[in-house]
Amino acid sequence: MQTIQQQATANLGKLRETRPLVHNITNFVVMNFTANILLACGASPVMAHAENEVEEMVGFARALVLNIGTLTDDWVDAMVKAGKKATSLGVPIILDPVGAGATTLRTNAAKRILAETKVSVVRGNASEILALAGVQSNTKGVDAADSVDQATEQAIRLATELKVPVAITGPQDLVTDGSRVIRITNGHPLMGAVTGTGCGATAVIAAYCGVDPDPVTAAATALAYYGLAGEWAATGAEGPGTFVPRFLDSLYNLTPTDLETHVKISE
Amino acid sequence: MQTIQQQATANLGKLRETRPLVHNITNFVVMNFTANILLACGASPVMAHAENEVEEMVGFARALVLNIGTLTDDWVDAMVKAGKKATSLGVPIILDPVGAGATTLRTNAAKRILAETKVSVVRGNASEILALAGVQSNTKGVDAADSVDQATEQAIRLATELKVPVAITGPQDLVTDGSRVIRITNGHPLMGAVTGTGCGATAVIAAYCGVDPDPVTAAATALAYYGLAGEWAATGAEGPGTFVPRFLDSLYNLTPTDLETHVKISE
Amino acid sequence: MQTIQQQATANLGKLRETRPLVHNITNFVVMNFTANILLACGASPVMAHAENEVEEMVGFARALVLNIGTLTDDWVDAMVKAGKKATSLGVPIILDPVGAGATTLRTNAAKRILAETKVSVVRGNASEILALAGVQSNTKGVDAADSVDQATEQAIRLATELKVPVAITGPQDLVTDGSRVIRITNGHPLMGAVTGTGCGATAVIAAYCGVDPDPVTAAATALAYYGLAGEWAATGAEGPGTFVPRFLDSLYNLTPTDLETHVKISE
Repeated sequence: MQTIQQQATANLGKLRETRPLVHNITNFVVMNFTANILLACGASPVMAHAENEVEEMVGFARALVLNIGTLTDDWVDAMVKAGKKATSLGVPIILDPVGAGATTLRTNAAKRILAETKVSVVRGNASEILALAGVQSNTKGVDAADSVDQATEQAIRLATELKVPVAITGPQDLVTDGSRVIRITNGHPLMGAVTGTGCGATAVIAAYCGVDPDPVTAAATALAYYGLAGEWAATGAEGPGTFVPRFLDSLYNLTPTDLETHVKISE
Repeated sequence: MQTIQQQATANLGKLRETRPLVHNITNFVVMNFTANILLACGASPVMAHAENEVEEMVGFARALVLNIGTLTDDWVDAMVKAGKKATSLGVPIILDPVGAGATTLRTNAAKRILAETKVSVVRGNASEILALAGVQSNTKGVDAADSVDQATEQAIRLATELKVPVAITGPQDLVTDGSRVIRITNGHPLMGAVTGTGCGATAVIAAYCGVDPDPVTAAATALAYYGLAGEWAATGAEGPGTFVPRFLDSLYNLTPTDLETHVKISE
Repeated sequence: MQTIQQQATANLGKLRETRPLVHNITNFVVMNFTANILLACGASPVMAHAENEVEEMVGFARALVLNIGTLTDDWVDAMVKAGKKATSLGVPIILDPVGAGATTLRTNAAKRILAETKVSVVRGNASEILALAGVQSNTKGVDAADSVDQATEQAIRLATELKVPVAITGPQDLVTDGSRVIRITNGHPLMGAVTGTGCGATAVIAAYCGVDPDPVTAAATALAYYGLAGEWAATGAEGPGTFVPRFLDSLYNLTPTDLETHVKISE
């Protein structure tokens, strides 16, 4: 049996070989950055949100990202429609509950997607995951106001109840399906000073779910790769501005072999 | 009493300490850049435009940006709804009349927002401010076709009539409430070669209005900080492309102390 | 009579002098990048998509971009409305059929625009052009799955039938009106690793159509300039991330004289 470090290496190799198409219904703020992140990883991104197009588009996809930032009701309907089609086709769905807990629209949208489609992984910050778990969080927007440690117990409970693996990202990352609890300590603080790095993590998890049938190892290895790219990018960056192009370069240049020795995953 | 130079220093310090949440209803072109500018400054950005969400979201905010680029009727309705709620809560509203004067939709939207909500600052280029003042401008899109000097007199009249401080940005910036007239000469020509630097200035004014109750000093000190970041970024940039990451780095790295000696504000 | 190399030089000179306004109705992923590309070239971009605004806005424009990425029905209606107005005013329309062939919505939208407005140039990747030609393509999203060589014959037939010049971009570019066939070999593989470089090419063709009344030479010289900027940007880039700012710098810094000796256009 492979160690998770070996899986990290294998998954990136498969991603680069197969270039999975990732269908994104995501928010306006991060569309461009998400597409560039997916291209840099080796995946093929497509963005499409029209209700009369999403079912056809998801038919080509190896993974579907549903991200509820900059939401409106018609987008929720399109997400549910795409999600139902993905469910029927066995296409993994990765949910990013941006701003859940901040507004009723977003909390309800995340819950509706979880109820009406088969989600493979939920990826949020600590505040968003606490909100989905029905616990009082301190969120007041889309930035986390709670720590990963504060949210761990609730993430385990949420994953168990929903039977959906949960990934929390932050200074440390955590992936759990309720029984396994995997911690990833790759990453860099500058990632928190750039908008959309969380949303980008969700997209990379989706790309990994397109090549790894186990959503828990897919999410954990995706986050290790993503965090390592952040570490490499930070070396030489002078702030969040110069970090971004270096981050995309690192995602593009990191090899499966680099991962062997540099991923920090513990279980 | 503090000089405005001392206020520039104090405001940036307060911004970094309090990380005010800035709610943006803004155009698609600049959403990502605006969010990264606000994060680099030290603020916490959120973008939300759904009519059934904006009132809840603005309840968490310390400032609200209403930016009328890439406009449609439903967005105008959401802006007015958010603006009315902000008015009732005392949350400062910063209006960016992108393209006012170019089309009826935009001119009317800016006027409706000014009529139905309590705007704290209007920030536009010279052509947009002339259009709001009801004067023939030369605008033919979203880039300024008139100079700040040409618009100064009208800006003073407009601020007096509306009882709303007006900021004009361009090669020189000007802030006036009709009686005070403050000029800011920080800045760099490359800022005009990048899309959304004007919209970013509006967002930074909003962040400053989240920490300074006087919109005139908030706007003037925000523009001096913003322009100084532009100057620093231009050193070593080889064009508008490499300017952008350096600009975000400068916004992030500039300290309150740097402002003491480098802001160029005169009254 | 000028050679096409001389026209490349002349067109960039005219673009920088006249700063044509380019009205874009384009997709959410690329709006920011497109605006920055147009500014770097020397054009003045505006984005506007509201049905009750597009006719007024296109009245100021020297070219109109219709790009069908991230499409919905109301955007198609706005594109057709803007396109009809542009047709009546003689404003050149450049169509980017993003994802044509992938979904019915997109294929039909591209065909409707071609039927109801007078398009000056269609610019797509090989898969998109094959789809418009009614030929089975291998597209499964928005990235090309077919080569320019495979699509050449169909592009010539399509241009002849529609009486609309066709540009295919990829590792090599091709422009044809059915009788002339021009090949452009400027460019760099990193351009394919960044989202929106194809959409950006469409926008630059539009800017050139704003200064050159012949859409075939406008498209060919635009693509040579654009590809050369890609070559210059790749020198020193460490991946697609650092490529982007360098690309914008190259678009900005390239002079008409640089083009004289470096464009690779053959007929």
